[in-house]
Amino acid sequence: MAVNLPELGKLDAIHGIQIGTACAGIKQTQRDDLVVMALTAGSQVSGVFTQSAFKAAPVRVCQQHLAVAAPRAILINSGNANAATGAAGFEDALQCCRWVADSLGVEEQSVLPFSTGVIGQQLPLAKLSEGIPTACGRLGDDWTSAARAIMTTDTGPKALSRKAVVGGIEVSITGIAKGAGMIRPDMATMLAYIGTDAAVSKQCLDELVRYASDASFNRITVDGDTSTNDSFILIATGMAGNSPIDSSEHPGYASLRDGIVAVARELAQRIIRDAEGATKFVTVTVAGGLTTAECLQVAYTVAQSPLIKTAMFASDPNWGRFCMAIGRAGVPALQADRVALYLDDVCVARGGMIAPEYTEAAGAGVMSQTEFVVRIDLGRGTAQETVWTCDFSYEYVRINAEYRT
Amino acid sequence: MAVNLPELGKLDAIHGIQIGTACAGIKQTQRDDLVVMALTAGSQVSGVFTQSAFKAAPVRVCQQHLAVAAPRAILINSGNANAATGAAGFEDALQCCRWVADSLGVEEQSVLPFSTGVIGQQLPLAKLSEGIPTACGRLGDDWTSAARAIMTTDTGPKALSRKAVVGGIEVSITGIAKGAGMIRPDMATMLAYIGTDAAVSKQCLDELVRYASDASFNRITVDGDTSTNDSFILIATGMAGNSPIDSSEHPGYASLRDGIVAVARELAQRIIRDAEGATKFVTVTVAGGLTTAECLQVAYTVAQSPLIKTAMFASDPNWGRFCMAIGRAGVPALQADRVALYLDDVCVARGGMIAPEYTEAAGAGVMSQTEFVVRIDLGRGTAQETVWTCDFSYEYVRINAEYRT
Repeated sequence: MAVNLPELGKLDAIHGIQIGTACAGIKQTQRDDLVVMALTAGSQVSGVFTQSAFKAAPVRVCQQHLAVAAPRAILINSGNANAATGAAGFEDALQCCRWVADSLGVEEQSVLPFSTGVIGQQLPLAKLSEGIPTACGRLGDDWTSAARAIMTTDTGPKALSRKAVVGGIEVSITGIAKGAGMIRPDMATMLAYIGTDAAVSKQCLDELVRYASDASFNRITVDGDTSTNDSFILIATGMAGNSPIDSSEHPGYASLRDGIVAVARELAQRIIRDAEGATKFVTVTVAGGLTTAECLQVAYTVAQSPLIKTAMFASDPNWGRFCMAIGRAGVPALQADRVALYLDDVCVARGGMIAPEYTEAAGAGVMSQTEFVVRIDLGRGTAQETVWTCDFSYEYVRINAEYRT
Repeated sequence: MAVNLPELGKLDAIHGIQIGTACAGIKQTQRDDLVVMALTAGSQVSGVFTQSAFKAAPVRVCQQHLAVAAPRAILINSGNANAATGAAGFEDALQCCRWVADSLGVEEQSVLPFSTGVIGQQLPLAKLSEGIPTACGRLGDDWTSAARAIMTTDTGPKALSRKAVVGGIEVSITGIAKGAGMIRPDMATMLAYIGTDAAVSKQCLDELVRYASDASFNRITVDGDTSTNDSFILIATGMAGNSPIDSSEHPGYASLRDGIVAVARELAQRIIRDAEGATKFVTVTVAGGLTTAECLQVAYTVAQSPLIKTAMFASDPNWGRFCMAIGRAGVPALQADRVALYLDDVCVARGGMIAPEYTEAAGAGVMSQTEFVVRIDLGRGTAQETVWTCDFSYEYVRINAEYRT
């Protein structure tokens, strides 16, 4: 029941990134659940990761490896998150890196491991010992297969490509992501990988990954629940031959940044479109704040309120629940009598109460659409922020009552 | 589908408090929706109220009246919250106080108004102008009718009585409350009123209302959504004839405090038992913290996580979701490898991972009960806190998709 999740279009190969997938049978045996990406020597890789105290073993290994070696390969498995698995889980993640390193002829520390799926169970190592060499033996350009292999409860793959022009040279940007539930990324998202053949310095790529995640994955929420395995990785192979982008002053910086943000934001929005049980895709914009922080605070309180999410499901333009959420968001000295609410172009309330010209029919008409914008004006400043979210349906309860995270 | 919500037992009259109810037909015409409490001269009244920026009109009137006059009457209506109703809503609340004042022969400012029900609609004043004198004309001792008249989506009334002994004199304590949804009280609860005939100074009563709310209503959550109308009122008529309790050193202080806390906590727990869609009553205890604040933070994150609440509904002992919630609760420098989880007496995990002796059957056995304790040990200190919550069912979605708050 995804909300207008686009079919995958053509995905551009990224010169310098080769991809192989395999079915290791980690949780089921019907489709691929392993991805290996081999990166050309000289590739730059930057990442942002979950802030959870229960950071998964592969996330910790990944951060250690990124600090000490130039990355040459990425390994992703779905079906098991290797989180809350103790010292043994950490060893297992290292062992998987070793198998990739052996197959590709690179250093163990140049392999970055990622896992997504059930938490608290040990990885089925025997299956990975077979699946990893298989995936490493199938390297090619098939990003579509990779987008499918990282899915868990996702109903469809999420991937797209964009072009940017850097110093007169066209560069490619291709990204994949998976989401579904346990989605309120905190400096990162569930799992997302964006590759480009542009040449970018490590420092610049570090900036770009933070900028892009703040404009995309850090602006979505399904249920307010942050995962143990969130990771967003940006890879620049440098094979396009542009003069390397080494600062934000570089003439190609803005074009590449905008291209990466476009891919990241579209992937983030597709995660919401395919969120567990979603029947509506909702943009929540909070304007008129004193600071962007307070706008975000209100936007997330609204986007995560179970009472508002069930009203969205019911297409109920429930001003009372919006008051409640705005009121409890903790904005200091907020004046209720300056607050306004719009659903698309329909003014539901201003001056803290229902607008005289407002009709329930107009509000319900907007909310019965599969996509609409909730716009809240706090009436006290010029700051503005936007987050994307979905509604809360019977299906969310069913999926999460039946699925073992 | 309330969870072991007790039938009402016998409720003790409180000497000095007279109660009248009426059906004003505010939202429906099948049952009483108005309560008037007349308080004897000399009664002390203390309250705690919602922290929402969209504080309802009656809450603001109530706080103003409490500051300037000795309370002589309480007016409560269900069916309409008179919140987000602007200057007109404020005037309407004052008008209702005037009608009570006229009927009872007291000052307008000695009347405290309360409302609960749909937010954002103006009060039907004509109905109240008839209902209020009717309720004022029926004064008696019927706390049971009052407990019923304040209900909204509650499936049953919540009320109980306790005794305490103050200086050799037995005093009575009777309380009523309503809850159901939009429940995460913030220094108060939806609506709760506890009366006693003990003699207590105003300062002491102020202390007691805070102490009791922190031990009861401020330790429950249904959906994390704080209402615009939360109020908890404590009334001491002084008619029991005890030597007035004027400090915590008074020999009767502890007995009265414990009696009030017992009533408040039981009312708070009954609100959870009768929460919208609840099928389980769950006690979440977080121990081993450095501070009570961090224990509360973890307890609320666990108690409000949609993924944990759906797992509770499914009787699924889902260690992965507990890791997720504990991990994202924002406890600084939490060491995951010291965390333990117990379901009643069953140790699910310790040292941050599944316990070797743990079986799914044992965990599922506990969670399939209608009541159980989730105990989390953070392994870093001696602080401990407890909150009470419920699960998240299809029925919660149905009720809130159909009901206009």
